[in-house]
Amino acid sequence: MTADGEELLARLPFPLHPDCMARYEDGSVLIADRRRFPFEEVSLRCGDVEEVAAAIEDMVTQGAGPPMAAACALVMVANQAATDSDPLAGLRTARDRLVATRPTNTGLRRVLDGGLEAAATAQTERRPLAASLRAWLEDTKGRYYRRALRTARIAAELVETGDGVLTMCFAEAAFVLAMAIAQESGKDPTVYVPETRPYLQGARLTAPCLVRMGVRTRLVTDGMPAFLMAQGRIQKYMTAADVVTMDGHVVNKVGTYLCAIAARRHQIPYYVLSGGPDPACPGPATVVIEERDPAEVRSCRGVPTTTADVDTYYPAFDVTPPDLVAGIVTEQGVLDPFRLGDRYPRSGRT
Amino acid sequence: MTADGEELLARLPFPLHPDCMARYEDGSVLIADRRRFPFEEVSLRCGDVEEVAAAIEDMVTQGAGPPMAAACALVMVANQAATDSDPLAGLRTARDRLVATRPTNTGLRRVLDGGLEAAATAQTERRPLAASLRAWLEDTKGRYYRRALRTARIAAELVETGDGVLTMCFAEAAFVLAMAIAQESGKDPTVYVPETRPYLQGARLTAPCLVRMGVRTRLVTDGMPAFLMAQGRIQKYMTAADVVTMDGHVVNKVGTYLCAIAARRHQIPYYVLSGGPDPACPGPATVVIEERDPAEVRSCRGVPTTTADVDTYYPAFDVTPPDLVAGIVTEQGVLDPFRLGDRYPRSGRT
Repeated sequence: MTADGEELLARLPFPLHPDCMARYEDGSVLIADRRRFPFEEVSLRCGDVEEVAAAIEDMVTQGAGPPMAAACALVMVANQAATDSDPLAGLRTARDRLVATRPTNTGLRRVLDGGLEAAATAQTERRPLAASLRAWLEDTKGRYYRRALRTARIAAELVETGDGVLTMCFAEAAFVLAMAIAQESGKDPTVYVPETRPYLQGARLTAPCLVRMGVRTRLVTDGMPAFLMAQGRIQKYMTAADVVTMDGHVVNKVGTYLCAIAARRHQIPYYVLSGGPDPACPGPATVVIEERDPAEVRSCRGVPTTTADVDTYYPAFDVTPPDLVAGIVTEQGVLDPFRLGDRYPRSGRT
Repeated sequence: MTADGEELLARLPFPLHPDCMARYEDGSVLIADRRRFPFEEVSLRCGDVEEVAAAIEDMVTQGAGPPMAAACALVMVANQAATDSDPLAGLRTARDRLVATRPTNTGLRRVLDGGLEAAATAQTERRPLAASLRAWLEDTKGRYYRRALRTARIAAELVETGDGVLTMCFAEAAFVLAMAIAQESGKDPTVYVPETRPYLQGARLTAPCLVRMGVRTRLVTDGMPAFLMAQGRIQKYMTAADVVTMDGHVVNKVGTYLCAIAARRHQIPYYVLSGGPDPACPGPATVVIEERDPAEVRSCRGVPTTTADVDTYYPAFDVTPPDLVAGIVTEQGVLDPFRLGDRYPRSGRT
């Protein structure tokens, strides 16, 4: 990693900072509590796998956070299970519990399966399990941030001077770094951030993180993007993805698809920042769209927004088909969503 | 009005009820306080024009509420000014203050100008001003509800059995009546109501009003409509309009245009319930889009959603062009947005 890159990563705000997003420490997993950011910068301490799983289910962290926290949980289990007769059994149980926390985010499963593989290899090679998984965790974390930085540099190239960039939800380190790089290279972008109800990831995470990185930011409500486009304020639309399928469908926070349709009407290109498509997901039919507790739609930060007799519905993600996507931005470059198989073969691991 | 119609109007929930939306009583104007509904059913008492104007600016009422409250304010002024040497002067001052409260809603101006005309006629004919304006107010209110009912019956005809109907913001009496009529005729619609941030008109007004009228209702967030369409849940999109221009542009709560674009992609017809186009508005260039206090985007029902260092932007309305509109539903029928001039001549008053 370049010195510039290290400096940028060190400046990442609390929920994204390499030392804070999720870490293993003294027998516990510490997760930056995104429910309390930006009002407070505190971590939640989890003493066992169930506590980590509950934290992920309770939205303490999202996006890259759950895979990172789950990886830390494996290290915790490996430390606890060091003297067990079958230490891999505990890791497998942990893996199953953690994969079940968020059905849509397949990154979680991929990271955990990577951890189990590392553990199995360590056992075959008679290396100590705990130390091996610690090394695997550091390696996983390092790869995540290097990939985020490479992806960010490519995404920053797509931004032109003075661009208004619309995003959705919290597009994690790669997007925040991309906007910071565009800003530092003098392109002076303005990022329009929809608040992303009901959980307010845009208002609570994206906007404060961008402001802290020195990027000009305007928070709007989720109904405003098309009007911003009609006003000529938006030149690019960029989000992350919870999953990109091999046939180029983008699964991301609900609301992403709505803006992608509007972007197409206004001839605004939509770029998706991603670690790459999931080889285990040939198309959208294989992705489970998580439905969260409908009661979350009836309140905002704990305050009721309507009466209890009103029925609600809360699909957490939506699916944008490849015809609305200008490019999938990965560390490998800007890829045609219709030709992901050329770079990412269906078999094998990314 | 038919007995059925009277019965339906009498069942309208508090913010829409003919006796509650806005009324003149004992020297004061009483406005159903939509900021406190559905949690409370209370009216705000205004003792002078400035208090009525401030109430409108503070969003105590919206849509048909400001014209109704402003009409009541003219009656209040006429009662107070009965002994003035130039009672019309006070009415004119009141008219100017009230028109300035909400720049986008031209219905306010049209109603107030109607009141001034009625007052001038009364003076010319030497009829008592206060009593004449009271009769004008009752007439205005009666026409509003009869028109809402006729429009509702036409809109209800557009709903087919089992339809999912998407709306936006609070489409007032005509829409609530339309869904109640569709429900009572056995069409059993399900209305999907986006919450309409930042002011939550969908969550606080539309959804509770529909529930109280016995209509199956599901509250969603503002980012969900396109996904609902992709799931096949939506067959019609219906909103009100703050203004329909003579060339068929629809000015309504920000978010309306975003859903109209998505509806077009999914081949879902978009119908606009309206009192008719504004003959003083040939096209969208003549409409002022109100920008409200950006700080409102940083909170929800008084609770902060982000930190104070985050810049925000709050355009309150957007503009949907006629190519996305299947029909303007007025008491005259379902009109082609490209041919409004055939029914509503540019000159004259609707």
